[in-house]
Amino acid sequence: MTYVVGVDFGTLSGRAVVVRVGDGAELGSAVHTYANGVVDRDLRGRPLPPDWALQVPSDYLDVLTNAVPAALADAGVDPRDVIGLATDFTACTVLPTLEDGTPLCDLDRFSDNPHAYVKLWKHHAAQPQADRITELAAKRGEPWLRRFGGMISSEWELAKALQVLEEAPEVWAATRYWVEAADWIVWRLCGSYVRNACTAGYKGQFVDGAYPSKEYLGALNPDFSDFPERMLDAPIGQLGQAAGTLTAEAAAWTGLHTGVVVAVGNVDAHVSAPAARAVEPGQLVMIMGTSTCHVMSGDVLREVPGMCGVVEGGIVPGLWGYEAGQSGVGDIFGWFVENGVPAGYGADAGAKHERLSELAARQPVGGHGLIALDWHSGNRSPLVDHELSGVILGQTLATRPEDIYRALVEATAYGTRLIIETFRESGVAVTELIVTGGLQKNPLIMQIYADVTRMPIHLLDSDQGPALGSALHAAVAAGAYPDIRAAAAAMGRVTRDAWRPDPANADRYDALYAEYRALVDHFGRHGNDVMRRLRKIRRAALA
Amino acid sequence: MTYVVGVDFGTLSGRAVVVRVGDGAELGSAVHTYANGVVDRDLRGRPLPPDWALQVPSDYLDVLTNAVPAALADAGVDPRDVIGLATDFTACTVLPTLEDGTPLCDLDRFSDNPHAYVKLWKHHAAQPQADRITELAAKRGEPWLRRFGGMISSEWELAKALQVLEEAPEVWAATRYWVEAADWIVWRLCGSYVRNACTAGYKGQFVDGAYPSKEYLGALNPDFSDFPERMLDAPIGQLGQAAGTLTAEAAAWTGLHTGVVVAVGNVDAHVSAPAARAVEPGQLVMIMGTSTCHVMSGDVLREVPGMCGVVEGGIVPGLWGYEAGQSGVGDIFGWFVENGVPAGYGADAGAKHERLSELAARQPVGGHGLIALDWHSGNRSPLVDHELSGVILGQTLATRPEDIYRALVEATAYGTRLIIETFRESGVAVTELIVTGGLQKNPLIMQIYADVTRMPIHLLDSDQGPALGSALHAAVAAGAYPDIRAAAAAMGRVTRDAWRPDPANADRYDALYAEYRALVDHFGRHGNDVMRRLRKIRRAALA
Repeated sequence: MTYVVGVDFGTLSGRAVVVRVGDGAELGSAVHTYANGVVDRDLRGRPLPPDWALQVPSDYLDVLTNAVPAALADAGVDPRDVIGLATDFTACTVLPTLEDGTPLCDLDRFSDNPHAYVKLWKHHAAQPQADRITELAAKRGEPWLRRFGGMISSEWELAKALQVLEEAPEVWAATRYWVEAADWIVWRLCGSYVRNACTAGYKGQFVDGAYPSKEYLGALNPDFSDFPERMLDAPIGQLGQAAGTLTAEAAAWTGLHTGVVVAVGNVDAHVSAPAARAVEPGQLVMIMGTSTCHVMSGDVLREVPGMCGVVEGGIVPGLWGYEAGQSGVGDIFGWFVENGVPAGYGADAGAKHERLSELAARQPVGGHGLIALDWHSGNRSPLVDHELSGVILGQTLATRPEDIYRALVEATAYGTRLIIETFRESGVAVTELIVTGGLQKNPLIMQIYADVTRMPIHLLDSDQGPALGSALHAAVAAGAYPDIRAAAAAMGRVTRDAWRPDPANADRYDALYAEYRALVDHFGRHGNDVMRRLRKIRRAALA
Repeated sequence: MTYVVGVDFGTLSGRAVVVRVGDGAELGSAVHTYANGVVDRDLRGRPLPPDWALQVPSDYLDVLTNAVPAALADAGVDPRDVIGLATDFTACTVLPTLEDGTPLCDLDRFSDNPHAYVKLWKHHAAQPQADRITELAAKRGEPWLRRFGGMISSEWELAKALQVLEEAPEVWAATRYWVEAADWIVWRLCGSYVRNACTAGYKGQFVDGAYPSKEYLGALNPDFSDFPERMLDAPIGQLGQAAGTLTAEAAAWTGLHTGVVVAVGNVDAHVSAPAARAVEPGQLVMIMGTSTCHVMSGDVLREVPGMCGVVEGGIVPGLWGYEAGQSGVGDIFGWFVENGVPAGYGADAGAKHERLSELAARQPVGGHGLIALDWHSGNRSPLVDHELSGVILGQTLATRPEDIYRALVEATAYGTRLIIETFRESGVAVTELIVTGGLQKNPLIMQIYADVTRMPIHLLDSDQGPALGSALHAAVAAGAYPDIRAAAAAMGRVTRDAWRPDPANADRYDALYAEYRALVDHFGRHGNDVMRRLRKIRRAALA
């Protein structure tokens, strides 16, 4: 009997899971909350500007020393029977290091410099850099831009690095490597620095074997031209490959042994796909939480409008990994519950969600007379427009909070259908829907998604999908399975057809979805750019 | 020293005010609440269908016997010094009577028959009849239809009468007169049945000296062809004329004497205009409550799209009286406060309105980034479309309840500006804005209306505008003033320039109003008929 450990590094905590290699049974788990959490207000007593979000790398090591031993204890397995360990991380979460991987923030001289710390995925202060990166790439017709839906995010490696160069040249000068945290933790575990294909592709714009050109980068900033060769020069590792084995130090941290194989790093969303047995082309996995991330493999390379990215081997080696996204989903529901629901619907947010869902579930499709646009955080896919905003249309004096709640849920389902249709219209098949993440527990949401998409919903049957996905990759890296497909077949956990579309509801939703698309075209494709103008007016008013 | 009494018959109560003829000072007042209120659930134990709203005529007489003596006592004036009394009423509020004015519902044999009672203005159960009335008039090209914005309301005399004919032939057969309550109360007071020019014109389609033709009415229903000659054959009285003097019975009810002159009946909205000194062309009076009624005199007859009606002498004898309306205003704010505001904004609706107004008032124009359409109850003027519905556009996760509250207030202000522009574009000048009604007390609303319209707001300086307006008409009817202009100059009460537009705000609102108009054109003028389709889908879903 052999075991693997999967470790999922989230935004606020890390979770370790011990999994049986033979059948994927989750035998034990433990969570460790980061002592410093998200550093977004002040750093060591000095206030941070808006849109900053940092982390402290030692918090990640504390997960290894606390959660891994605790999970092993919880599972009651003999550490000697553990053959592999793998990790997944939020992304793009990135930090500057010395030659040996020491984070610059660990040096006394940089301990007060925010640019020396980990920039968390939701650090958005590099937006001016991101705007220039996208504009210049579009202007020069850089071919890689289309792989990312025509937009390079402020969350990604280039923008965050350029911000350091331009705002903290002293940190830039001291940086040897610009390292994804996903790879940094693997480096700490096994002593080898390997850039995983997933973050290098999606977050680092490593396309067809190359980074953006010297000329392009130099046009952004002359000192940026050698960024890849100076700071990204590490071998690329494919997902599920071994990066090495545990160092003695890491074995001591984790309570494991130096024979444990450590897999190449991975990303929380992408690593979940094999856990849900989604390793074949057309199996779309939706990680549904505050936002939704869509990951799916395809056997063809197509330019699908508004994707977050398409990366070779980005999810499963040998296939094209497509990623799309809805920038607001659960957080729209949360915003509404916090700001738009009167007393009497429940004592706290959880009770209100439940009560609204219950009332909304009783309604016939179309009974509330509303259509909403789910653009409260802009639209990522397929419109790639963060200046868009939310709409609700059809209110009367009889409209109740549960009507609006349902309309908002439906709007996000229409948004998913629009992404599916965009894939299909671009020649990329979508044959299955698998849902994971917190929203899978809400029956109203699941049934509406099934009805709107006219597809059954399969569920990843685990509360810790990413950690389980990491465990699968650990098993492959350790050689227990020949590849991730075999591991998924043996260890993946999916409840098929958990929700089936109701054909009568689906017919009614076709009519409502047609209305949604007409509004998308009008407000999202320049029929009426009122949303952009309102944002401009707003910025001027608040300036 | 002489006095007049004005009596305002509202939806739930009647109010009497004693006013000094010389200067319009309000010396005393009293309110009497109708014992039966609005009868809209059941009549004498039998349930009523949806959309019914009845009243009991004896409730109106109780106002005469209670509120008038109480107001006289409150004023401390000698009843012998009272020279005139006038009334105003909700409209179209209408009832069937015998030859002598006895309401049919007062007969034992009809006391259980809902069609024998007063049909209150908000009785909407004659909508099928109203639809046929409008459609047939449009099809036949009836010229009078354009005087009413192309639509005859279910609230008006024709639809309500046709409903009786078709649903209660026994009541129809027994009806001698189909009487506006505004005229019925005058009949009770002075013994003479005079149809006032205001309700006959706006609510009875008495246009250029004639009712709709026999042929037209007969095509609606053969038994309807002689409706005007059979049931509306009473002399027309101009506003401010004397209808007679108090009968001995009415003198006893009111505590007055038989020398008191009784004025021709009037309507609550229209009667307010002279109280606000709005007796000249171009002075637009807005009665702002749950909905807004706009009344204005003009010296030219123009066909203004979407008016409720234009009637010769409908407000001031000798001028064209224009009426327009916004079907939802205060009730949209009320709906939002009840359904869209979380705990923490105040213990009750009043406190919430106050808190939201206070927070919204601090915002710069355009700061919330929102645009709303104020169509929660459809749009009366200028679109005349009750299938329209509300919109709010521009929400983000940072949108707060006070933002939406302000956007809804602004939307109704844009709706008013659209009406003003429609008048002007049709060749009818609008030179002044005078506000009365409950919403005048809200500084946020008033300032926004001034800024959006770029016009100063004058206020009718009385809490009982309609009753004061009636008192003015009483003074004219009694001969104290030669006409309503003279009475308005002496007795009217207006605070001029209570709110002045801020030029910078007005400039910013021009940009936002342009967005509103674009949305109006798109959703209200067949750019996208999604609202009509959503209503259809809703009806089918709920059927």
